[in-house]
Amino acid sequence: MAPSANPIGVFDSGVGGLTVVAALERRLPKESILYLGDTARLPYGSKSATTVRRYTRRNLEFLRKRGVKAAVIACNTASALALSDLESPMPFFGVIEPGAAEAVRSTRGKIGVIATASTIGSDAYARAIHALDSEVEVSSTACPLLVPLVEEGWHDDPVTAEIARRYLEPLLAKGIDTLVLGCTHYPLLKTTLRQVVGEEVTMIDSAETVAAKVAAELARLDLLSSGDNPEFHFCLTDVNNRFRHLAETILDCDDLTTEWVDVL
Amino acid sequence: MAPSANPIGVFDSGVGGLTVVAALERRLPKESILYLGDTARLPYGSKSATTVRRYTRRNLEFLRKRGVKAAVIACNTASALALSDLESPMPFFGVIEPGAAEAVRSTRGKIGVIATASTIGSDAYARAIHALDSEVEVSSTACPLLVPLVEEGWHDDPVTAEIARRYLEPLLAKGIDTLVLGCTHYPLLKTTLRQVVGEEVTMIDSAETVAAKVAAELARLDLLSSGDNPEFHFCLTDVNNRFRHLAETILDCDDLTTEWVDVL
Repeated sequence: MAPSANPIGVFDSGVGGLTVVAALERRLPKESILYLGDTARLPYGSKSATTVRRYTRRNLEFLRKRGVKAAVIACNTASALALSDLESPMPFFGVIEPGAAEAVRSTRGKIGVIATASTIGSDAYARAIHALDSEVEVSSTACPLLVPLVEEGWHDDPVTAEIARRYLEPLLAKGIDTLVLGCTHYPLLKTTLRQVVGEEVTMIDSAETVAAKVAAELARLDLLSSGDNPEFHFCLTDVNNRFRHLAETILDCDDLTTEWVDVL
Repeated sequence: MAPSANPIGVFDSGVGGLTVVAALERRLPKESILYLGDTARLPYGSKSATTVRRYTRRNLEFLRKRGVKAAVIACNTASALALSDLESPMPFFGVIEPGAAEAVRSTRGKIGVIATASTIGSDAYARAIHALDSEVEVSSTACPLLVPLVEEGWHDDPVTAEIARRYLEPLLAKGIDTLVLGCTHYPLLKTTLRQVVGEEVTMIDSAETVAAKVAAELARLDLLSSGDNPEFHFCLTDVNNRFRHLAETILDCDDLTTEWVDVL
């Protein structure tokens, strides 16, 4: 079997990376996807770089052994903390640079970034943005409660709006015109975040940009699939109903099955 | 060295178990304590029984190999899901039964229980309460956002009160007279919870009851320490500053050091 027929691997700490899967599916409808959600050890966003790097290395190795032709690290925290240290014989992609590039294309000069505590602590977005345009002003803030609020299902709730307002007020006071949603969970809060930031701020969700980058790179490497029966397979380190429920919402399906796997 | 000179092991998914350490220190001031916080894999409260059991077995084994004379599973979720399956040559204690016993002593007939989703899903508190008094009415609700709110440091905040109110209203509507704080993080929210439940509801924090049970059992087994230099040692599977900050608040100290350990 030609390597091009192998699936694309996508890994996230939990369910959020499925927004990247959905974007890949729209752009590359012939590709099979093998998803790994490290649900037994999530969240990553409050943990140290040492731990996140170890988990990321092992997850990437798991995907490689399962025969993926390329891997997307859909988790912002893992991309921010671990990407620069990673080595692998297969191509792999993070989500920070594509998101930063999209933000720089969009901005009139002032970019806000919201993400987990560990992503903000790494300063990865500000560095990626300044590598492209050193004149841009970047304001960042960690939003630790937004992921639990999404997982509780309070996507469109006055309490969520109130908490988002508290996190975002300092960024809005600085006059940001573009807001990077620096965690794969945040696109699920777009309606609430839009109420808070108003109509004038452009929100950047890196899922589409990452999918575009993957498509271009696989084409360049002659790794695009020509098959007609793409398959989706979902591996989880902890199997629970919450994942399935959120996953079916994100992927707009109702018969998702999952496989339990142990990744040390 | 006599076994009685060995430390008591205490394990929690994170920092919350330190409320049990503080209670042990007050009641048994001569005892050394070895604490294990499984911070690399927290939280447990949203994960499946299979995963929580595996983590609990391995954590208990870690403590045993480090030579503790007895172990306290301070995590409510681990106690609720894993205790009945555990085997160990040393004595070990969970927090559900002591909390349930205290609630039954306190109640006039209607007990409310708040805890993580996994603890509530296990029905462990209701079973433990009904084993002591089958007439008591038990109403339970999962409060997944309370732990993240504590970890964000919003202990005493209008948003936290609003969220607590939403969780507790159905219990208050049922006329509960006693509320079990079924997660080691919740005692840190006592002031806010008191505003919500009013003065008439008794709040049960199992830390003191667990410490009393440990003291009685160690006395029975002739395992109480007679040393004058108790030592406290803190092991974490992920080392980060947030743990230290919360730990110093709970233990009222300012020079806490931690050791990184790998528990698979």
